[in-house]
Amino acid sequence: MKKAKVCVVGYGNVGQEAVECIRQAPDMELAGVVEIRSVDNPQIPVVNTIDCLGHVDVAILAIPSRDIPKVAPDYLARGINTVDGYDIHGGSMVSLRNHLSECARQNGKTAIIGAGWDPGTDSVIRMLFMAIAPQGITYTNFGPGMSMGHSVAARAVPGVKDAISMTLPLGYGRHQRDVYVEIHEAAEFDEVAQKIKQDAYFAGDSTRVTRVDDVGKVKVMGHGVLVERIGASGTAHNQRLELKMSLTNPSATAQIMVSAARASMRLDPGCYALAEIPPIDLLPGNREDLVCSLV
Amino acid sequence: MKKAKVCVVGYGNVGQEAVECIRQAPDMELAGVVEIRSVDNPQIPVVNTIDCLGHVDVAILAIPSRDIPKVAPDYLARGINTVDGYDIHGGSMVSLRNHLSECARQNGKTAIIGAGWDPGTDSVIRMLFMAIAPQGITYTNFGPGMSMGHSVAARAVPGVKDAISMTLPLGYGRHQRDVYVEIHEAAEFDEVAQKIKQDAYFAGDSTRVTRVDDVGKVKVMGHGVLVERIGASGTAHNQRLELKMSLTNPSATAQIMVSAARASMRLDPGCYALAEIPPIDLLPGNREDLVCSLV
Repeated sequence: MKKAKVCVVGYGNVGQEAVECIRQAPDMELAGVVEIRSVDNPQIPVVNTIDCLGHVDVAILAIPSRDIPKVAPDYLARGINTVDGYDIHGGSMVSLRNHLSECARQNGKTAIIGAGWDPGTDSVIRMLFMAIAPQGITYTNFGPGMSMGHSVAARAVPGVKDAISMTLPLGYGRHQRDVYVEIHEAAEFDEVAQKIKQDAYFAGDSTRVTRVDDVGKVKVMGHGVLVERIGASGTAHNQRLELKMSLTNPSATAQIMVSAARASMRLDPGCYALAEIPPIDLLPGNREDLVCSLV
Repeated sequence: MKKAKVCVVGYGNVGQEAVECIRQAPDMELAGVVEIRSVDNPQIPVVNTIDCLGHVDVAILAIPSRDIPKVAPDYLARGINTVDGYDIHGGSMVSLRNHLSECARQNGKTAIIGAGWDPGTDSVIRMLFMAIAPQGITYTNFGPGMSMGHSVAARAVPGVKDAISMTLPLGYGRHQRDVYVEIHEAAEFDEVAQKIKQDAYFAGDSTRVTRVDDVGKVKVMGHGVLVERIGASGTAHNQRLELKMSLTNPSATAQIMVSAARASMRLDPGCYALAEIPPIDLLPGNREDLVCSLV
């Protein structure tokens, strides 16, 4: 079997885990890591630009969502499939899909977008729940776990030296924000706390701000989700469906991207959200064996 | 929008619910029911053979699994997609897939097999769990709920007038069988109970047999499942994933078949297990709107 050559773009928390997931995949080999910062790992090939790597089949874009619309087309133009964890739901996801769809088709390649756990596998499960019980209500409850977007927003508030924002589930899709801040010596905690609560990221939710000496001491990568549907199918109105996950976040995100990289080699040219992919294509091996052992 | 014309073959518990699910689907209309027994419902067209119905796009085969390999090819040969709830896992599923794949391709049609909740949506979710955490162990726990196969096996034991067999989850994939029997006057309960426990369907599990005057009084269509995975992704070894459902069984099964009927209109000719279908195709509406609202 010819192994797929997969590169990882970005060597942050998710990128580092993606390297490990590729190492463990029976059908892949690491083509290298593309990262402009200096990386302290002599065991893997790290380059500043994709030009320095040989043949690559798929690029895992472990970079911020805002950079994806710009970076992905460049890889597709070089004849490399892309997988990203773009995490902005709604119209923005549709725009990215349309944009990359054109680039992917022009180059005979595939792009898979939003390949994390939410958006991503949670989205797939929300759709399956609707396929089982079309009428009803689905609640998605996140946490407890660190929200990257909210943490970045808290860090941008004047007077903040470092911060993390935890998402705490209050049930039925409601959440509380629990912000831990380390402030600069000259800053006033009460003022900083007030500014965080007024920030657009936090204004809609109940937010608690706690001062700590060292944000490092409260930083944790565990996260979780509970997707609940109460629905109806046919004449039955008490269909209860529930997905619950407790995850080390960067590892799960990286693994889903790597599984999607495998699927990217099996699809017709175009751009796909995870829910547009046959789930069986995420797994190594041939379909007949998988149907025999897992269906 | 042109509605898909869907017929239901078999008018038992699942067939009756399928009719209701089609009635509720915004993109389908009921072509009729094919049932050889007499059916007491003047509101729906019931025929003895598919020859008596006009144009049909998809047939929902709500018939016993053992009849599917014989019945499905006949519908495919008539240019009708088929959806079934074939529920025998493993090699038998693969044989059906190969057989129907050939029939479907010859006729330019699609067949979807094993479109229930297990096999079916549970199989999809087991695969998603492996895509998130490739190393690990998955336990599937069924019940409490009535097992059709075990109930039929208990009814076939001499001396049994009627019986149902409940599946009770004991945790970590182990199950107990809880059989309720109504016996013939001449029969000895202890002997009947002994024979049930020795039957191949029950011999491997702990089985409790209880005598009742009227099986109808204990009959219930509720069922449930808990799919648990403890897995690893990348360097993280405490990934916990759990699907829990509590369902009215025939309604959920019928609805999944009806959702699969929709997908059958969107696939290339061939035979597919549910896990081989993009989940988004199970839902009504166009992909772009679904990506916008559900991803």
